[in-house]
Amino acid sequence: MASTVRKTFIFSLLSLLYLFSIVASHQHRHPLDPLTPSEFNLVRTIIENSYSGSNHSLTFHYVGLDDPDKQTTLSWVSNPNTTLAPPRRAFVITRLDKDTHEIIVDLSTNSIISDQIYHGHGYPLLTSNEQVAALQLPMTYPPFVESVKRRGLNLSDVVCSTSIVGWFGEAETSRILKIPCFYIDGTVNLYMRPLEGITVVVDIDEMKITGYYDRFRVPVPKAGGTDYRASEQKPPFSPQLRTLATMQPDGPGFEIDGHTIRWADWAFHLGFDVRAGPIISLASIYDLEQQKFRQVMYRGHISELFVPYMDPTEEWYYKTYFDAGEFGFGQSAVSLEPFADCPAHAVFMDGYFAGQDGKPIKISNVFCIFEKYAGNVMWRHTEIGIPGKVIREVRPDVSLVVRMVSTVGNYDYILDWEFKPSGSIKVGVGLSGVLEVKGVSYTHTDQIKQDLYGTLLAENTIGVYHDHFLTYHLDLDVDGVSNSFVKSNLETKRVTDNISPRKSYWTVVSKTAKTEADARIQLGLKPAELVVVNPNKRTKVGNHIGYSLIPGSATSPLLSDDDYPQIRGAFTKYNVWVTPYNKSEKWAGGLYMDRSRGDDTLAIWSLRNRAIENKDIVLWYTMGFHHVPCQEDFPIMPTLTGGFELRPTNFFERNPVLKTKPHKNVYWPNCTTTRT
Amino acid sequence: MASTVRKTFIFSLLSLLYLFSIVASHQHRHPLDPLTPSEFNLVRTIIENSYSGSNHSLTFHYVGLDDPDKQTTLSWVSNPNTTLAPPRRAFVITRLDKDTHEIIVDLSTNSIISDQIYHGHGYPLLTSNEQVAALQLPMTYPPFVESVKRRGLNLSDVVCSTSIVGWFGEAETSRILKIPCFYIDGTVNLYMRPLEGITVVVDIDEMKITGYYDRFRVPVPKAGGTDYRASEQKPPFSPQLRTLATMQPDGPGFEIDGHTIRWADWAFHLGFDVRAGPIISLASIYDLEQQKFRQVMYRGHISELFVPYMDPTEEWYYKTYFDAGEFGFGQSAVSLEPFADCPAHAVFMDGYFAGQDGKPIKISNVFCIFEKYAGNVMWRHTEIGIPGKVIREVRPDVSLVVRMVSTVGNYDYILDWEFKPSGSIKVGVGLSGVLEVKGVSYTHTDQIKQDLYGTLLAENTIGVYHDHFLTYHLDLDVDGVSNSFVKSNLETKRVTDNISPRKSYWTVVSKTAKTEADARIQLGLKPAELVVVNPNKRTKVGNHIGYSLIPGSATSPLLSDDDYPQIRGAFTKYNVWVTPYNKSEKWAGGLYMDRSRGDDTLAIWSLRNRAIENKDIVLWYTMGFHHVPCQEDFPIMPTLTGGFELRPTNFFERNPVLKTKPHKNVYWPNCTTTRT
Repeated sequence: MASTVRKTFIFSLLSLLYLFSIVASHQHRHPLDPLTPSEFNLVRTIIENSYSGSNHSLTFHYVGLDDPDKQTTLSWVSNPNTTLAPPRRAFVITRLDKDTHEIIVDLSTNSIISDQIYHGHGYPLLTSNEQVAALQLPMTYPPFVESVKRRGLNLSDVVCSTSIVGWFGEAETSRILKIPCFYIDGTVNLYMRPLEGITVVVDIDEMKITGYYDRFRVPVPKAGGTDYRASEQKPPFSPQLRTLATMQPDGPGFEIDGHTIRWADWAFHLGFDVRAGPIISLASIYDLEQQKFRQVMYRGHISELFVPYMDPTEEWYYKTYFDAGEFGFGQSAVSLEPFADCPAHAVFMDGYFAGQDGKPIKISNVFCIFEKYAGNVMWRHTEIGIPGKVIREVRPDVSLVVRMVSTVGNYDYILDWEFKPSGSIKVGVGLSGVLEVKGVSYTHTDQIKQDLYGTLLAENTIGVYHDHFLTYHLDLDVDGVSNSFVKSNLETKRVTDNISPRKSYWTVVSKTAKTEADARIQLGLKPAELVVVNPNKRTKVGNHIGYSLIPGSATSPLLSDDDYPQIRGAFTKYNVWVTPYNKSEKWAGGLYMDRSRGDDTLAIWSLRNRAIENKDIVLWYTMGFHHVPCQEDFPIMPTLTGGFELRPTNFFERNPVLKTKPHKNVYWPNCTTTRT
Repeated sequence: MASTVRKTFIFSLLSLLYLFSIVASHQHRHPLDPLTPSEFNLVRTIIENSYSGSNHSLTFHYVGLDDPDKQTTLSWVSNPNTTLAPPRRAFVITRLDKDTHEIIVDLSTNSIISDQIYHGHGYPLLTSNEQVAALQLPMTYPPFVESVKRRGLNLSDVVCSTSIVGWFGEAETSRILKIPCFYIDGTVNLYMRPLEGITVVVDIDEMKITGYYDRFRVPVPKAGGTDYRASEQKPPFSPQLRTLATMQPDGPGFEIDGHTIRWADWAFHLGFDVRAGPIISLASIYDLEQQKFRQVMYRGHISELFVPYMDPTEEWYYKTYFDAGEFGFGQSAVSLEPFADCPAHAVFMDGYFAGQDGKPIKISNVFCIFEKYAGNVMWRHTEIGIPGKVIREVRPDVSLVVRMVSTVGNYDYILDWEFKPSGSIKVGVGLSGVLEVKGVSYTHTDQIKQDLYGTLLAENTIGVYHDHFLTYHLDLDVDGVSNSFVKSNLETKRVTDNISPRKSYWTVVSKTAKTEADARIQLGLKPAELVVVNPNKRTKVGNHIGYSLIPGSATSPLLSDDDYPQIRGAFTKYNVWVTPYNKSEKWAGGLYMDRSRGDDTLAIWSLRNRAIENKDIVLWYTMGFHHVPCQEDFPIMPTLTGGFELRPTNFFERNPVLKTKPHKNVYWPNCTTTRT
């Protein structure tokens, strides 16, 4: 009892100290800053203590900043010195004795504001600890040990991974994973050496194997040629690529102030979330003519991924991943390698997330920030039309890139947010890493008589067809919060005046979307311009100011609408959706993605057909790739890139980079270079 | 008479000397090298002398290398030391006394092999001289002088340009141009200050004005805000962008040997043509496993552009440009500005073309070649799935770029051919420069009640809607000359086995195109992989080796098929065509583009529906942009980029850059830098 009293006293004292420090730092904290290690610990302590007294199984599945009220945040941004910042709160999802809890913790009062049990379908993010625990279970499970032995393999060279199982109509679900296993004798590229034919089912709440099936045996693909480590490569080698040594004589052009980044005419806030990865907030651009910053995007981040494999067989049908909501894009982020993942002149930032026990885990170098000099031209013109003159004006392009890499098991996702001085925001995704492959008995395509659902990449190795869809939440606030979405179709017109020698031309027919149904768009069918406009603001000559979505990698699903994974991933049905701003509508597949049933997706919200004209609206864009693997993807994929652009469209009175000063010429420096 | 004898003697002597030098250099000349200044002069002299004796009006409209026989060239490439190079010939189009002549000159025998008059429709490339002469005519034409005066303008501030007139069903045509004029008082940006309402028609064979119409007057848009010269800009200025100083410590990774370029695993030949601009030939890639170079592309170049404006009114209906065939993409190429058009570490090459008098004209710095370090990742993977290890392998990406810029009047086209170590060839197009605008009386959109065929960009200034289509001739020879074109549709399949919990998946259904009709593809409708394969070669596990077309900026025309410009530009109807190799089929709109009637386009050739399976085939790809101008494009456009990729697909046994050595780390050099 004394011990408890002492603990309570010490806790109160510490809390008080925490309180003071939080209040003190609160004045300098940006309301959108991600939770700090101290705050993670505070949250953990508060929640743990709320359950103290008996033995509980408590695991933390999501700990993130609870989005502060948007209006309050915008008011604070306009007047940070005189306005009270919105209170900092954490939104937490825990599992407590097999219940899922949604908890809001107020970090200024150190108290739990609400704690509700979630009774719906689906489960929160998987934690790293429970996956690690689950994948070790087969090693001591006699039937598995026997299966390995029967295949003539050494158990000590077997490693396992985890796969979600999705939902296929089951009335009841529990938290289960399946455990695919691999053979790493002779290679570290486990994914290229699958142990096919075995299904291991683990209930991760019970943390035990609840199902096992060894259905068939095929050879494990060979190790030879699968290792990608530089140390393992043998001659002959390709010609050595030459390096470029770079330096910025005047230093980098960006300033980082906490999580706020300023560069050229841009200012924005960079956050990190365990589920979304990078979050860009409060992106605004300085307008030379208006002499002030103008809002562009309140918040932009990845909302969900959908990676379904196209193999309906027993061991593959369920591989239909939702990487952000199941595994956490931020949780899966990896440390960037200087001079390789990012150019030599990049700077780095760390990120933090809460582990299963609520304690903060650091990912060092989770972001890199750099000025990108790709050798492109910002604008140019050579004029020879004026007699006696040759005029030439050329401006080289520079942009600012924020990069993060997330490795979800086998695949590496390189995520770029690129800001251009011209006012464009370019979102880039690079896919690299390792394919998921299926072991088969075939060693040549001539032997194959039926559909194997993929490409034979090497002997015994099928690269299974699959898709990657990435859905972005883009809360644009074009020069203000009240926006509309305008779809401008390009329509062919016949010339009917019997005067013009022309028979046709195209013109623009614009329609403002009134409700959500007007703004669900599958791209590729008809040419159109898609613009988020501010209907209350026009340029001097009367055009509505706006930002266009310039699509790229616009891919649509090929699964049937009634297929379970497609029900859960129904947010991919359209490339473009527009919804009215709603704080709870962040995750396009729903808050609880693991074993979700598709009842809380963007597609479901949109059925309400709400009004979206001259309101605070959110744009959702889905890009993707249909991936037919080829041998060049074996044993590791050269980066496949895609992306899209948000481009100012009558946002400015004229070209915003017209007055960019020409590049200063810099000759080869007289240098010595230091190598490692 | 004596003078003639002397001239003839001197000429013979000079010819003999020329002959010796040509023969001598012939041994070292690559058969695909563009014509040299000496060769241009030789061609001119030979042709001039063939007409000597009476007064002729002789103008040179096209002088280029006559494509040597493909088989002979390929034989020579395989064995340059023991095989005789194909003879060098020039293909020349002249106008002689108003006839169009097609002439082939043999540069080894210094003789004219053939000289035929072309009796068909259309005319050859316009020359710079005749355009300059034509645009000066209005200045001394009284009605025009009167029109300028009536508008209250000074004739000395008027400059004119040239526009082709196309063909709109006229039974007879002659070589005419229309002359748009502009007002440069207060700016060099002539295009932003059009004198609207005036039509000047010039017959350029007669070189006189044959038509004049001053139909209406509207204000000339103001000069203020239109000048783009750095020297003319006034504060406030945007934040100064920081420079990057670069150096390659080990020097550039490429070697240039005449016109042959070697870099990383690539080798290719770079040519220059007055009509096409850059020509990439004999692109082949070194295969580490096979220990030899393997063919990828025999020749690739721009075949035609099509830039139709969407305004059917009197002064605009005919603005339907075919920039390569009418103006010459090479002829319109401009000198690149070091440190601005290309990175600091780029190298440059000059280009030559023949002027109207046949004499060579040099464009210095017409090409730049540089290694592009955009900070991208070639491939990467972080592996945490093996207990006790964290494995991380990252390779930064480098590519080689060949760049040329062509400025056709107002528009600047930045053309890139990018070679990646992974075996991809990426073609990039950047559009910058100045829009074509139309003068109107309106100063605000509220005043506009009818379709003005464009966007009001500034007071009195409409940016007219238009398209840019660029059609590429891509003679891929995938590991050999005999190829096929395979279209692999991604098709949804329903699961019918009642076992799998899945209801659907997609699979690949491949069809080899047998005839041309099978390979006309409008993109965007159905997802498909498009692969040029070698049906006679397979990888070790049996996949057909190939190169895929990864489309980008795939845009389709919106003009009616029966509209005259669309008849002439019918090659844009499909994004993809495949034809059997035919030496004469180079220019997708036909050999004679000016005033063409569409009777010799790619669409016409394709109607023959020739066999294209397991033959020497050519791929044609059309990319494009529908351009709805916006105020950010005023008074000069930030570069809009697009492009496509040719990517190896089961061409290699495995990832060809797997064994790329990791980048050497280079720290900040201790430097001094020199500035200009």
